[in-house]
Amino acid sequence: MDLDFTKLDGLVATVIQDATTNRVLMVGFMNAEAFRKTVETGFAHFYSRSRNKLWLKGETSGHRLVVKEISTDCDRDAVLVKVDAIGPGVCHEGYQSCFFRRLDNGAWAITEPRAYDPNEVYSK
Amino acid sequence: MDLDFTKLDGLVATVIQDATTNRVLMVGFMNAEAFRKTVETGFAHFYSRSRNKLWLKGETSGHRLVVKEISTDCDRDAVLVKVDAIGPGVCHEGYQSCFFRRLDNGAWAITEPRAYDPNEVYSK
Repeated sequence: MDLDFTKLDGLVATVIQDATTNRVLMVGFMNAEAFRKTVETGFAHFYSRSRNKLWLKGETSGHRLVVKEISTDCDRDAVLVKVDAIGPGVCHEGYQSCFFRRLDNGAWAITEPRAYDPNEVYSK
Repeated sequence: MDLDFTKLDGLVATVIQDATTNRVLMVGFMNAEAFRKTVETGFAHFYSRSRNKLWLKGETSGHRLVVKEISTDCDRDAVLVKVDAIGPGVCHEGYQSCFFRRLDNGAWAITEPRAYDPNEVYSK
């Protein structure tokens, strides 16, 4: 299960994709421990660069990502995880996907409504 | 079109997804210039960390990525580009997608045949 963590200071870029719709839901980073925990528990874990700690996605919101399939790329320095996402949205801003902004004539436009109210989920 | 290039030493992680099948084809990194060139030309450009230079995907192979849609995430530090991929495969190892290895009982297993012979494409 060797991955190449050397190119990104101990991390690999990780793409989270909905296993049913194939929508890309988020991009995060895993260190070796986060990858191991993801494989062992079946829930996606990441390494938070801002908080410098291991992070179970859904720890606060309950919106966990249930791992269905894990792939790596030719260089083994990126990971693709297909998931079943628990809850209405993966993004902490309330959207189904973190990629809710599309480039439209040189500006980022929000292209969908929120799937839930983040204040309800994260302020409790 | 502001992106946050500060978290990754001037780069943003970029996911390339097939616009028709929604398959994730590769993950690369863009600096500000690569992002600008991608938007301006309509062909995906990256920044090569190993070669320290701007890189037009398909420069050698002809397998360019025609941009159909560009999204960014909540933190504006990752980019998702939906593309029409020219040619049989995106991966320099000959596969349709760089993610041709799947985790299977603790080992990476190749799950598909090559789509083209990389020696034919890259040795010329």
